[in-house]
Amino acid sequence: MDEMYLMNSLWTMVSAILVIFMIAGFILLEAGSTRMKNAGHIAGKTIFTFGLASIVFWAIGYAFIFGDNANFFVGMSDFFYNGALAEDGGLADTVFFLFQLAFAGISITIALGGFAERAKFSAYVVFTILFGILVYPVIAHWIWGGGWLAEHGKQDFAGSTVVHLTGAMAALAATILLKPRIGKYNKDGSANNIAGHNQVYTALAVLILWVGWFGFNAGSTVSVDGAFFGFVALNTNLAAGAGAVAATFISWLVLGKPDVPTLLNGALAGLVAITASCAFVEPWAAVVIGFIAGVLVFYSARFFEKRKIDDPIFALSVHGTAGVWGTLSTGFFATEELATVGQAGLFYGGGLHQLGVQALGVVTSGLYAFIISFVILFVMKKLVGIRVSEEEEIMGLDISEHGSYGYPEQMSANSTSKISS
Amino acid sequence: MDEMYLMNSLWTMVSAILVIFMIAGFILLEAGSTRMKNAGHIAGKTIFTFGLASIVFWAIGYAFIFGDNANFFVGMSDFFYNGALAEDGGLADTVFFLFQLAFAGISITIALGGFAERAKFSAYVVFTILFGILVYPVIAHWIWGGGWLAEHGKQDFAGSTVVHLTGAMAALAATILLKPRIGKYNKDGSANNIAGHNQVYTALAVLILWVGWFGFNAGSTVSVDGAFFGFVALNTNLAAGAGAVAATFISWLVLGKPDVPTLLNGALAGLVAITASCAFVEPWAAVVIGFIAGVLVFYSARFFEKRKIDDPIFALSVHGTAGVWGTLSTGFFATEELATVGQAGLFYGGGLHQLGVQALGVVTSGLYAFIISFVILFVMKKLVGIRVSEEEEIMGLDISEHGSYGYPEQMSANSTSKISS
Amino acid sequence: MDEMYLMNSLWTMVSAILVIFMIAGFILLEAGSTRMKNAGHIAGKTIFTFGLASIVFWAIGYAFIFGDNANFFVGMSDFFYNGALAEDGGLADTVFFLFQLAFAGISITIALGGFAERAKFSAYVVFTILFGILVYPVIAHWIWGGGWLAEHGKQDFAGSTVVHLTGAMAALAATILLKPRIGKYNKDGSANNIAGHNQVYTALAVLILWVGWFGFNAGSTVSVDGAFFGFVALNTNLAAGAGAVAATFISWLVLGKPDVPTLLNGALAGLVAITASCAFVEPWAAVVIGFIAGVLVFYSARFFEKRKIDDPIFALSVHGTAGVWGTLSTGFFATEELATVGQAGLFYGGGLHQLGVQALGVVTSGLYAFIISFVILFVMKKLVGIRVSEEEEIMGLDISEHGSYGYPEQMSANSTSKISS
Repeated sequence: MDEMYLMNSLWTMVSAILVIFMIAGFILLEAGSTRMKNAGHIAGKTIFTFGLASIVFWAIGYAFIFGDNANFFVGMSDFFYNGALAEDGGLADTVFFLFQLAFAGISITIALGGFAERAKFSAYVVFTILFGILVYPVIAHWIWGGGWLAEHGKQDFAGSTVVHLTGAMAALAATILLKPRIGKYNKDGSANNIAGHNQVYTALAVLILWVGWFGFNAGSTVSVDGAFFGFVALNTNLAAGAGAVAATFISWLVLGKPDVPTLLNGALAGLVAITASCAFVEPWAAVVIGFIAGVLVFYSARFFEKRKIDDPIFALSVHGTAGVWGTLSTGFFATEELATVGQAGLFYGGGLHQLGVQALGVVTSGLYAFIISFVILFVMKKLVGIRVSEEEEIMGLDISEHGSYGYPEQMSANSTSKISS
Repeated sequence: MDEMYLMNSLWTMVSAILVIFMIAGFILLEAGSTRMKNAGHIAGKTIFTFGLASIVFWAIGYAFIFGDNANFFVGMSDFFYNGALAEDGGLADTVFFLFQLAFAGISITIALGGFAERAKFSAYVVFTILFGILVYPVIAHWIWGGGWLAEHGKQDFAGSTVVHLTGAMAALAATILLKPRIGKYNKDGSANNIAGHNQVYTALAVLILWVGWFGFNAGSTVSVDGAFFGFVALNTNLAAGAGAVAATFISWLVLGKPDVPTLLNGALAGLVAITASCAFVEPWAAVVIGFIAGVLVFYSARFFEKRKIDDPIFALSVHGTAGVWGTLSTGFFATEELATVGQAGLFYGGGLHQLGVQALGVVTSGLYAFIISFVILFVMKKLVGIRVSEEEEIMGLDISEHGSYGYPEQMSANSTSKISS
Repeated sequence: MDEMYLMNSLWTMVSAILVIFMIAGFILLEAGSTRMKNAGHIAGKTIFTFGLASIVFWAIGYAFIFGDNANFFVGMSDFFYNGALAEDGGLADTVFFLFQLAFAGISITIALGGFAERAKFSAYVVFTILFGILVYPVIAHWIWGGGWLAEHGKQDFAGSTVVHLTGAMAALAATILLKPRIGKYNKDGSANNIAGHNQVYTALAVLILWVGWFGFNAGSTVSVDGAFFGFVALNTNLAAGAGAVAATFISWLVLGKPDVPTLLNGALAGLVAITASCAFVEPWAAVVIGFIAGVLVFYSARFFEKRKIDDPIFALSVHGTAGVWGTLSTGFFATEELATVGQAGLFYGGGLHQLGVQALGVVTSGLYAFIISFVILFVMKKLVGIRVSEEEEIMGLDISEHGSYGYPEQMSANSTSKISS
């Protein structure tokens, strides 16, 4: 084992840890974006589903994505991965496995964002397993496991499509089938703002995700070669910053005040968007990509709200809209020199070819993720139900699904003051 | 200095930072598992005791564990460590020192979990010093410093015994001597649930600890050789996931609903259990070890509660019960190939030998930690007292021990609403 | 590219990520030290300003600090950094860039601490840009970019002066021009305690900053050579611990109870103080430096409060007073062997020379930062105003500056109970 092998393994190990840390960001993002009566449920289910997704990925997911003897959909070896190291390869298989496990865990966590504040705990259990077998591995195999989109030169360096768009499409299916939360829409069709209960949580979430994203993007080099991870990290940070700035100003312009949830979504949208292109574009392009993502996420959230698609944690806009934009962006901005996969983009003399490949990837991956997720959830809905009863939803999922409040003292103080008022 | 030396130092440095980050997990775990009136006290004392433990370890602890001229109990050189580097060794002594300092800091933090919601701040001060001199270094010397248990081939890769069981035994002594919190038990002997005030904190804590545990376990390689840290990290993640899943389902089965605190304890129990065996067992065994830990932690918490041992943050079940199980587990599952210390376990043809060594380690270490901690706390109790007055406990330790609330606005809002109701 | 280049890049990359993670610490520190009605504002603006500072640093700041063709104030090349790698250099320029970007982001975040609970959001926008162009790069150029203080052998390993003192001097200017918060001082001149709303946040903040500081200080080696980062990290940890312990005891002695905010500030003061000297002093000196910082921060906070300088998050005492002490301390404690920059300190036979250089650095840098910041803010105050109206301040900045509460449910519960009482 030479030094490069060890250094590659070390850097990817650090990156895997950073990506797993992103789960902390999602705990805070989802809890902060929803109401106090559901906070313990959301926090607890996120730990549970990451644990369950880890086991599913170990048993089946990894084999489907990277296994040998692949059919059109998936590979077929290395089930219940035993930790063996291949003879070749630039880094230890165990480390690569853990890095990939983390990505699968992030994707299901994004998908489950669409369930917020109204789904049964049992629906989380079943969907985590089926998504981890039938949805995520197929798209990851197509793009990263040597499948047909990889053969077409689809550029998705760290997973704008594989992780974010896939998760968002599943979230969309869930949102449609679950229907909006009680109280979200009035009879005249107008929407109410059901504010999340803690913006400190959501801001902290954004910073944790920002930090974790260095593992997500720069770690996707899975190599220290040429210290190229530094370039990727630089682009990542610039896109996040530009996204936050753009969203702040667009909300200020339109709403008259800089809106905090929008500002935070802007940073995340910048991060999601640069995920596909971080290795293929120049720093100025990263700024532009992030800036556009910050504007898009604001209008996207308004678009979905108007169409009565109730998306409490903005999963569709942050991971879906920005995921699409990010995937397409590399078709515009990828440079000849940096495009180690696929070709240069439209602005660098590559014509429309790469943009077409990117669009093909978005459409096929997005459709696959949406359709399979929809079918799974539709069957679950018919067979056992996926939404809690009206009474349980009003009571809150903490008490109705788990038997204890996440904030017992505050919930009791709240109800006392409501009674007294 | 060759590249291996530098890479080993770099990986262990990253790991030390991750282990110190676990203190953030403990702040949130303890604060979230207790009541609002004690939250500032708990958060503040955790920072203080980690600071104090750092100084004690520098002055004395490190010398006792790893010093030369050792007697049966401890070593006797390198007090007030001056940062010098030994000529040999696979990594920089300074980095090894910091990694070990972090472990000592975790162990005392676990021990002080047994003090929650009723001990004087002064008791934290005195016990942190004495535990850091008389308790932890002796067991660490026995197992990791070349002491008699090391000579017997005791397997404890990253400290199920040294760190977790030791901490838990001290917590047990404290719990017994402090007696239960006011209101925990009724006159008829039945127990009340004194719910922790914030499950978002506890879930976030679990994720932070999960992440930090990669430093704890995979970092205990203190080497990049063969990129073996990846294998250890993989086992660690699988055990945590299996623990969370198991605890969710056992509580669902028994209580009718998946209990959030149990689910979170399950993940931690899986992590504690795999700590001893993470380098010696195969991935499937890690899943089994974690799964069993998740079941055990649920029944253990019920066992202690019934015996009127009031353990607000589940230190005894998570670190004690799972620590014992983890230490024994390697006697079952260690493979011939992986057992670089000791021998193969029962299921891999090693017979009962290794299991016996593990049991011997548990009993002697556990007894030593319990007895010395008990004696220290007993003397403290007689001389100066270790528990606050009844009035102070009801008022909360924030105001009574420190003069200000951790949540001044919310405590005042609560009392207003209580008055108004 | 040889292995040293890659390892240096890898370690500095990890360190840059840790420093960026410190922004999470500042979110929690500022939010926890202030009131609930301003929490969303504070959390959101911290993400925004870090994003904006990233873009400003990329466009201009980096060029001013490290560019070629420097005049007395700044360098003049590499605007809008394109990610190119220099032919020479011990690590990748992209990584060094990101590490430096993080430092600039921390400095402005410290500066903006002086704005807390009364400044307009627009003031944050404008000052972030101007500080990032006119203030920080000049001092960083003087000390780290080969400017005149570097030529005099000014010792500031990781930025007690460059980052912390600069930030604190800007905060001082802001504090003076903004005037105290409504309700802070009574007509008779006596001060009221406006308690921060969440000590769990502040304690968690301290631990996150502590962890991030390993990147800040040990990462400032920007090299793995001799694994010297371990020595720096060791000193950093000891100073933080000693600061926490000292502040606990001094507050206990003076106030009769160990004060939690003081204790937490003590840890931070130890960290700020050791930042200048962490590479130049022995571990015992790190303990002494941290201990003295812990005492100083307590008296400094009382000093500023008496002089009607309202500093809600203790930016002046933690970053200013401890920054000065830290910068001077190396003039006392730097050893002959360790002083790779400048000379040995007073206690190691270096006489008063180094102490004089340090004092010169403090005075010139501090004055520059204060004066330019004061002028910028003074002009802003006259032209557009920097403070919200009295009504807006009482209402809270969440609702008045952003249109939504950070804690909507709790604010509504609070107001309900106030109405009912």
